[in-house]
Amino acid sequence: MDVGDFVKIKMENTMYCGTLMPSINEDTIVVKMKSGYNVGLKKTKIKSIEILKPENSSNFQPLTSSNNEFKPLNLEKNPNLKNISILSTGGTVASRVDYKTGAVHPAFTANDLIRAVPELLDIANIKGRAILNILSENMLPKYWVMTAEAIKEEIENGAEGIVITHGTDTMHYTAAALSFMVESEVPIILVGAQRSSDRPSSDAALNIISAVMAATEPIKGVYVVMHGEIDDTICNLHEGVKVRKLHSSRRDAFKSVNNTPVAKINPFTKEITYLREIKPQNSSKIKKVSINKKLEEKIALIKVYPGIDSEILKFYVDKGYKAIVLEGTGLGHTPETFFSGIDYANKNNVLVLMSTQTINGRVNMNIYSNGRELQSLGVLPCEDILSEVLFVKIMHLLGNYDLKDAKKLICKNRVGEINESINLKY
Amino acid sequence: MDVGDFVKIKMENTMYCGTLMPSINEDTIVVKMKSGYNVGLKKTKIKSIEILKPENSSNFQPLTSSNNEFKPLNLEKNPNLKNISILSTGGTVASRVDYKTGAVHPAFTANDLIRAVPELLDIANIKGRAILNILSENMLPKYWVMTAEAIKEEIENGAEGIVITHGTDTMHYTAAALSFMVESEVPIILVGAQRSSDRPSSDAALNIISAVMAATEPIKGVYVVMHGEIDDTICNLHEGVKVRKLHSSRRDAFKSVNNTPVAKINPFTKEITYLREIKPQNSSKIKKVSINKKLEEKIALIKVYPGIDSEILKFYVDKGYKAIVLEGTGLGHTPETFFSGIDYANKNNVLVLMSTQTINGRVNMNIYSNGRELQSLGVLPCEDILSEVLFVKIMHLLGNYDLKDAKKLICKNRVGEINESINLKY
Repeated sequence: MDVGDFVKIKMENTMYCGTLMPSINEDTIVVKMKSGYNVGLKKTKIKSIEILKPENSSNFQPLTSSNNEFKPLNLEKNPNLKNISILSTGGTVASRVDYKTGAVHPAFTANDLIRAVPELLDIANIKGRAILNILSENMLPKYWVMTAEAIKEEIENGAEGIVITHGTDTMHYTAAALSFMVESEVPIILVGAQRSSDRPSSDAALNIISAVMAATEPIKGVYVVMHGEIDDTICNLHEGVKVRKLHSSRRDAFKSVNNTPVAKINPFTKEITYLREIKPQNSSKIKKVSINKKLEEKIALIKVYPGIDSEILKFYVDKGYKAIVLEGTGLGHTPETFFSGIDYANKNNVLVLMSTQTINGRVNMNIYSNGRELQSLGVLPCEDILSEVLFVKIMHLLGNYDLKDAKKLICKNRVGEINESINLKY
Repeated sequence: MDVGDFVKIKMENTMYCGTLMPSINEDTIVVKMKSGYNVGLKKTKIKSIEILKPENSSNFQPLTSSNNEFKPLNLEKNPNLKNISILSTGGTVASRVDYKTGAVHPAFTANDLIRAVPELLDIANIKGRAILNILSENMLPKYWVMTAEAIKEEIENGAEGIVITHGTDTMHYTAAALSFMVESEVPIILVGAQRSSDRPSSDAALNIISAVMAATEPIKGVYVVMHGEIDDTICNLHEGVKVRKLHSSRRDAFKSVNNTPVAKINPFTKEITYLREIKPQNSSKIKKVSINKKLEEKIALIKVYPGIDSEILKFYVDKGYKAIVLEGTGLGHTPETFFSGIDYANKNNVLVLMSTQTINGRVNMNIYSNGRELQSLGVLPCEDILSEVLFVKIMHLLGNYDLKDAKKLICKNRVGEINESINLKY
């Protein structure tokens, strides 16, 4: 058997058909399935292997500039359509599979996307611009700043909507960062894909079409657009500060938390159905944009768990960290054994903020004695702000304000990160 | 206005009626609502306050041994019913509200529970035993051991089912710990409540009735029983290693992850509907029980995020930690900037395990270059094991095996913590 062979592998209860890939270790065989996904199979559990048709990988020709002869793009502007800029940052939505190794690499540029989804040109005048080429697990605060700068330039140069193609791993962190950093009258839509665009099961095209549709709407603010269901039916428009990746691989991995999505987008009928009211744009100020690039990067995010070492707080305080976001248990609790570390942080003027690891629901530190004691040690309960959003918000606040003012502003709703209408009863 | 007054407070858009509680700080007024929950109201947002009826808190008389004259329990055994032991550890399910301060304190003993829910005596012969009296955010590995010891004693003394009343904050951690520590033919049911039992909206009684029902079933293993819906309709029976608290306050906060619940329990009709097959008990070995109390406590759990400090790994390695569980992004990734810390851990024989912060779905570190590189640095991808369960599992494994064997066993399904049937496509 060679890498590239098309094989049928029988296991105890199941069978896998796919292309043989290079192994990760000697105990495992890796097979690329028709879905495009790799499966690692333990050799000890394999009953039989059969070679069906050697070197059969011709179904999966990646669509990239390097192996396709493209005509140069000649995009004439349609005066009846809005001008949308697509900024590419990398990620699966703009990636291709290396069929030698089976690995996925970010590759497409924004112009490649237009070539792959020419339908976009019926929705808007599209301008493509590559600003980064990374997988989103490598996203860093400095790249948020680069992205904000590019958004500003595009809006000032006439973009009436922005689409940012982004890896899904940290798309919700970037959406939160841009929510706090960019002030404009233009919709800024982050979009990703869970399957790369050269795969038969890719969600990239529908997501991008839906994102461009959203970008032509008369709304403002930062949003995420992704599949709303497993199948190719609708996409959801999520608020950038109320969304989280909640599945590692499903196409409908992104869910609005503590609120409904803003709208459902049907990329087939081109209809957008709003589920609630949102801020309309002031179209007379469409070219007005300001960005705030100051971020305090010495912020830690800590998930709390039984037996967690209290000295972890001392570690961060002694390293000069300015604030620590806790993902507490339940309504916002930590073990009593963690109190000494919190006290140390408080005495050293390091802000300790509380969110919850239950993801859904609101922090309430007035109900149990534990929450009350934490508050007396200086911990601030932060409503229903998602921990990831809280982490980004305090970076932004401490980049712009002193500790005292940041404390006052952290629980003040800024861009929708706090849903004040959530019933406290449930 | 005095603490205890019944007030009507008008805000900009809403109105609150409830009992005035002591304030947390000078900017806030705290009101205990009819639901039993406290609401903190910013003084600056209050339009008007009206005192309706002073000192009106008579609806909420807590039911505790201290203020109620109980007859001693005289429980005659019904030979047609099974013998169930209820072990109380504290938490909301067995708590009362201090109406001076509005705080909730763990208070009820198992016998108090029987007095509060006498219906239990129609389902089983109940024996109550208080083993701890803590809020579950203070749960520690040593208390898991105490609980396992009490379970063993009860089973050896004739208990045919065990119910453990537990705070909800960390109930899923304890359920996982007991899953790995206790081997028996008896159902072990953890149960909690999101509202204390002296409140009109309490879920305690229905949850406990459902838990005792489950404890009389001919099944084995560790489970969690909690409300399946917001309303008082059904409870769900969740596998102890496939469940997570996913809302800070809702009564249906616990959800099975990467699997359905095991069964739906109707506490009104006394019907249990199984949704899938589970291990039946061997009733001839019902008194056979063994517990494994060895836990390696030097285990850390770290959530990964953009810009996370790589030195956090060095901190744990240098403190003698034996393993680190990462909650990576997406399919199990970390920033490249985190690789140096992982390399340091690996070179110092500290095991680094990968789970995902998306909660749902499976880790797959063969798809992207980042995952492959992490594996080459020694990180082990841990299937669809929940991070909290992985944390407990490696405590258990390193308490009993050397590093080499623990590595081999970590991805071997033991008690249902790995769902091998999850389709990798989604």
